[in-house]
Amino acid sequence: MIKFEENHRPLILVTNDDGVDAGGIKALREIAREFGNVVVVAPDSAQSGMSNAITVKVPLFLKKVHSEKGLYVFKSNGTPVDCVKLSMHSLLPQKPDLVLSGINHGSNSSSSVHYSGTIGGAREGVMNQVPSIGFSLLDYRADADFSTSVPFVRQIIQQAIQYGLPAGTFLNVNIPGGNSIKGIKVVRQARGKWVEEFVEREDPRKQKYYWLTGFFHNQEAGAPDTDEYVLEQGFVSVVPCSLDITDYSAIEQLKDQSYEMSINGVV
Amino acid sequence: MIKFEENHRPLILVTNDDGVDAGGIKALREIAREFGNVVVVAPDSAQSGMSNAITVKVPLFLKKVHSEKGLYVFKSNGTPVDCVKLSMHSLLPQKPDLVLSGINHGSNSSSSVHYSGTIGGAREGVMNQVPSIGFSLLDYRADADFSTSVPFVRQIIQQAIQYGLPAGTFLNVNIPGGNSIKGIKVVRQARGKWVEEFVEREDPRKQKYYWLTGFFHNQEAGAPDTDEYVLEQGFVSVVPCSLDITDYSAIEQLKDQSYEMSINGVV
Repeated sequence: MIKFEENHRPLILVTNDDGVDAGGIKALREIAREFGNVVVVAPDSAQSGMSNAITVKVPLFLKKVHSEKGLYVFKSNGTPVDCVKLSMHSLLPQKPDLVLSGINHGSNSSSSVHYSGTIGGAREGVMNQVPSIGFSLLDYRADADFSTSVPFVRQIIQQAIQYGLPAGTFLNVNIPGGNSIKGIKVVRQARGKWVEEFVEREDPRKQKYYWLTGFFHNQEAGAPDTDEYVLEQGFVSVVPCSLDITDYSAIEQLKDQSYEMSINGVV
Repeated sequence: MIKFEENHRPLILVTNDDGVDAGGIKALREIAREFGNVVVVAPDSAQSGMSNAITVKVPLFLKKVHSEKGLYVFKSNGTPVDCVKLSMHSLLPQKPDLVLSGINHGSNSSSSVHYSGTIGGAREGVMNQVPSIGFSLLDYRADADFSTSVPFVRQIIQQAIQYGLPAGTFLNVNIPGGNSIKGIKVVRQARGKWVEEFVEREDPRKQKYYWLTGFFHNQEAGAPDTDEYVLEQGFVSVVPCSLDITDYSAIEQLKDQSYEMSINGVV
């Protein structure tokens, strides 16, 4: 189904959560083509906020929408994670050398990493032992301008190809909006949360409904080694993220609190 | 809307991803009632594999389905994360003292933690600074027997109330099936992955479709400090999980690989 003329080039899988027609994924795929053969497999409609969700209740479809030299584009009715799983299993001629997700229209810094479908795509890549990166621009608009992001995305992809990435780790890259990006900083995830507000209204049948909205609150404003801080300062933030979410420091603490007390007297 | 007679008791929010009518959530709510006033807010249908997904495209509804002394039960069309957000914002009389999610019908150990809606509910609790625990039984059947789980779930809830939990950390608790549970072990998340197999068929219109299935592969079988290992040995596994997924060891490595090389010469 997929066959590239120059098949010695790296194979790069590109996905996102804004859908196959979004400006961000078009920008990303064009940068990716500088580095290798590119297969885009992305949702057929927006899948924002889908996190690491998988589709188990309905079947998945996969449709080719475009191909040209060094590029294939497919769409699917699945989530970003589904797109990566399906590509790896049923579409790609071999394991890809890189999985790229994005460029998301809107931030995925701090705790947004947990809700992001863009990040879900990158996490699924590294779950398959492929170096993976999620990219997001701090501009949620459909017509966001990705041109300023290009040199930074290019550099980060180049570094990942040159050095690889640590096993079990993917990169969460966020890019400030505007035209004066100062550089790139490798930082940690800021502690922050979405402060929810629900719009409460009545539907035409007089049933109350709630619509999720909210704003982000940075719980450690001013901490210089965090993604939120460097983004405010005009830098691209790179947060290495682990598949292993064990809180190692808590293990001993819980053991001391006799969590392991046996009920049957065996421990 | 919610008013408890004995309002000095702890307030416990219970959710899940198998839906409000599942056997697992009924078992969990009854244990929770021993410790406090309980509000159940759970999906109106199964939301397995929904991870940390939130609903942004459609409005959410919330319906009371039952109440008795010390217990209210609501259902919603949202995900487990939506259920927690909605409860916190629009339903509960005050911030809960504990968020419990489950008991899931099926394992959420190792890397399944990333796909699990049960875990999504627990993560959202701790995002709101409430001690939170996700419980799962290694039996996916709808008629799974939760009676053997009861003393272990009870003990873990009791410990969490007595000692609290480390800030930013929730517990991923998995419980072996069968009748001879040996005790409880505090362990780390095993490295493992789902090996995907897609059922490939044609629909009535001759379009190819794919249906996700697969089996779990433990990539570090025999490692005694992992959840997979202790579960095989017949113990309940408790993995403390962090909201902060930064891979700290990778930060210096990436800095050394000149990720911070400036394009504009500013760094």
